[in-house]
Amino acid sequence: MFERPNIRRMSGYEPGKQPAAPAIKLNTNENPLAPSDAVMEALATITPAMLQRYPDPLATGLRQAIARYHGCAVDQIVATNGSDEFLRLAVTTFAAPGQPVGIVEPGYNLYGVLAAIQDCPLTGVPLLQNWMPPDDLAARWNRAGAPLALLANPHAPSGTLLPVDAIVRLAAEFDGVLLVDEAYVDFVDPGRGHDLVSLIDQTPNLLLARTLSKGHSLAGLRLGYGLGTAGLIAPMLTKVRDSYNVDAVAQHVATAAFTHPGGAHRSWELVRSERGRLAAALDARGFETVPSEANFLLAKVPASFGGAEALLAALAKHDLYVRWLDGPRLVDCLRITIGTVAENDRLLAALDQLARAPERGRS
Amino acid sequence: MFERPNIRRMSGYEPGKQPAAPAIKLNTNENPLAPSDAVMEALATITPAMLQRYPDPLATGLRQAIARYHGCAVDQIVATNGSDEFLRLAVTTFAAPGQPVGIVEPGYNLYGVLAAIQDCPLTGVPLLQNWMPPDDLAARWNRAGAPLALLANPHAPSGTLLPVDAIVRLAAEFDGVLLVDEAYVDFVDPGRGHDLVSLIDQTPNLLLARTLSKGHSLAGLRLGYGLGTAGLIAPMLTKVRDSYNVDAVAQHVATAAFTHPGGAHRSWELVRSERGRLAAALDARGFETVPSEANFLLAKVPASFGGAEALLAALAKHDLYVRWLDGPRLVDCLRITIGTVAENDRLLAALDQLARAPERGRS
Repeated sequence: MFERPNIRRMSGYEPGKQPAAPAIKLNTNENPLAPSDAVMEALATITPAMLQRYPDPLATGLRQAIARYHGCAVDQIVATNGSDEFLRLAVTTFAAPGQPVGIVEPGYNLYGVLAAIQDCPLTGVPLLQNWMPPDDLAARWNRAGAPLALLANPHAPSGTLLPVDAIVRLAAEFDGVLLVDEAYVDFVDPGRGHDLVSLIDQTPNLLLARTLSKGHSLAGLRLGYGLGTAGLIAPMLTKVRDSYNVDAVAQHVATAAFTHPGGAHRSWELVRSERGRLAAALDARGFETVPSEANFLLAKVPASFGGAEALLAALAKHDLYVRWLDGPRLVDCLRITIGTVAENDRLLAALDQLARAPERGRS
Repeated sequence: MFERPNIRRMSGYEPGKQPAAPAIKLNTNENPLAPSDAVMEALATITPAMLQRYPDPLATGLRQAIARYHGCAVDQIVATNGSDEFLRLAVTTFAAPGQPVGIVEPGYNLYGVLAAIQDCPLTGVPLLQNWMPPDDLAARWNRAGAPLALLANPHAPSGTLLPVDAIVRLAAEFDGVLLVDEAYVDFVDPGRGHDLVSLIDQTPNLLLARTLSKGHSLAGLRLGYGLGTAGLIAPMLTKVRDSYNVDAVAQHVATAAFTHPGGAHRSWELVRSERGRLAAALDARGFETVPSEANFLLAKVPASFGGAEALLAALAKHDLYVRWLDGPRLVDCLRITIGTVAENDRLLAALDQLARAPERGRS
């Protein structure tokens, strides 16, 4: 046992199951549609020389495409091997071992794992009954002396969105670096006019984490990025990041995704439309869904199904995979990724069948 | 300035230049040959669904292919986003902040960068005049209390090889985890019968780092891996690694590289043959090359060229890029990657031209 004591004590992150087709995967918040033709065409143009040589360590061309997409500067961007890497870089860069990392509870389990690896305790602040943070969130993180806080917005696993003015106030009140994890932001209703990227310039302690895994149907490619002032991004870009963290294929294919985002936009419209339909259909069947701006729904399971864990198992027998997240406030709920129209119909049909014959479904 | 003090103080790793073709790149130790047809054919079979879905977090199929290739067990392997990631995982897992990391000097600069990120000091032990470590290497690391040591073998930047029995003794004498970085091991003369993988089972504190960047012409793909006992690998595999650290493309393409290694083997033969020829040709021109088992030569530049840095600049004007590594014992040397026959000929021709007209070459 050579590993450090904090590593010995901790548990790793538990990823969701990856069952093979024809299983219907509504369990890991992937995009229901495949990546666009433009993306696949870019993949087809990878040359042997692009694999033979080291990639651009700074992913300059890709960061230029991201900068054009967002209307920000190239030095306000660091490209990463999935947004997981960006979250880890932020913990490594801003939180010294022993210093607490601010989170809200319930939240995304990975944040606790990253803090444990760095030997940092957590300062967890419980969300209110409506899944919103309390007014004194920053004050409580400040009292603990947290140099960094990690906040998913839209929130995971509830899907609720904290509006821009609340983020502005939180960043102003918080003494440390506020990292807003925008993994699901592409699915927010455009009518809400939600935009944090334009805040970066005037908010020196605000970082945004983005990913192509969900919004751009590229979970398999591993491409995320972080946004912030050049000063906040620089230590991650030039010091803490592994030297060649984003491979040549991901740089090339992701550049195409930003240059030709039409296919991704269509998937967002589908998700928004199906999110409304699925929430109404679940509520009509006795579930209680949380109003979501993400590509998933957190749904409290009606007692007639014998509990969320039992329903999870019953659905798996129908080759339908959703996610059950054990823990306070979540044990009675399932987190259901928005699928295609056909996939969501399959889920609803299975629920109706299980509701009619609960004993057989659970056997 | 929100970053931790150790991050503020440190400097990042400086990767070698990546000039575009038709420049001749003998500066970053890439393979002179392109990846094999089998590898490119595997790339062509990537489906949209493979990009849409998360990859296997444990890279099981790839690790099975690596296990078959080496004749070891799957749980003795962790696949990583380049071997850079494996080195970082080892530092994070085994060296607590403040504990010294053992290295030899001169050595690979990245080791110092990784230690600085973790806020670990270095215990550097100078190599002997023949680039071999002193007999009391383990004792000196032990006296400093190092829980981890990083040792490139073949050594970078000299290319010298520490034989198996010396590694066995070092691992037995060292109280911490000995990570042998075998980035260049594919290029060792097979006549030496050099094999550390077969030592893993009986050496509970030995880790081996491997990469496909050099031996398999896949620097752009970012695929490395670590080998060790299952107990030593487990915390990196199940806790410290980012959840989806190896993307679906790299898993698929690298599996083909291990299943069809013929092209890689041919490149190793070319490198060995050209290594001998280039070393003799350089020595005949007044350089002093170190006997190398890697895909590069460390060559002391004759005084007639006006210094190594001047020769570096003069070669760049001929579109020939080699590496100059400033620092003790290295300031008078260039590190030259073994190229194709034509590339090495171009280098020798340029040196001859510069030797005839040194002033013009340096202007």
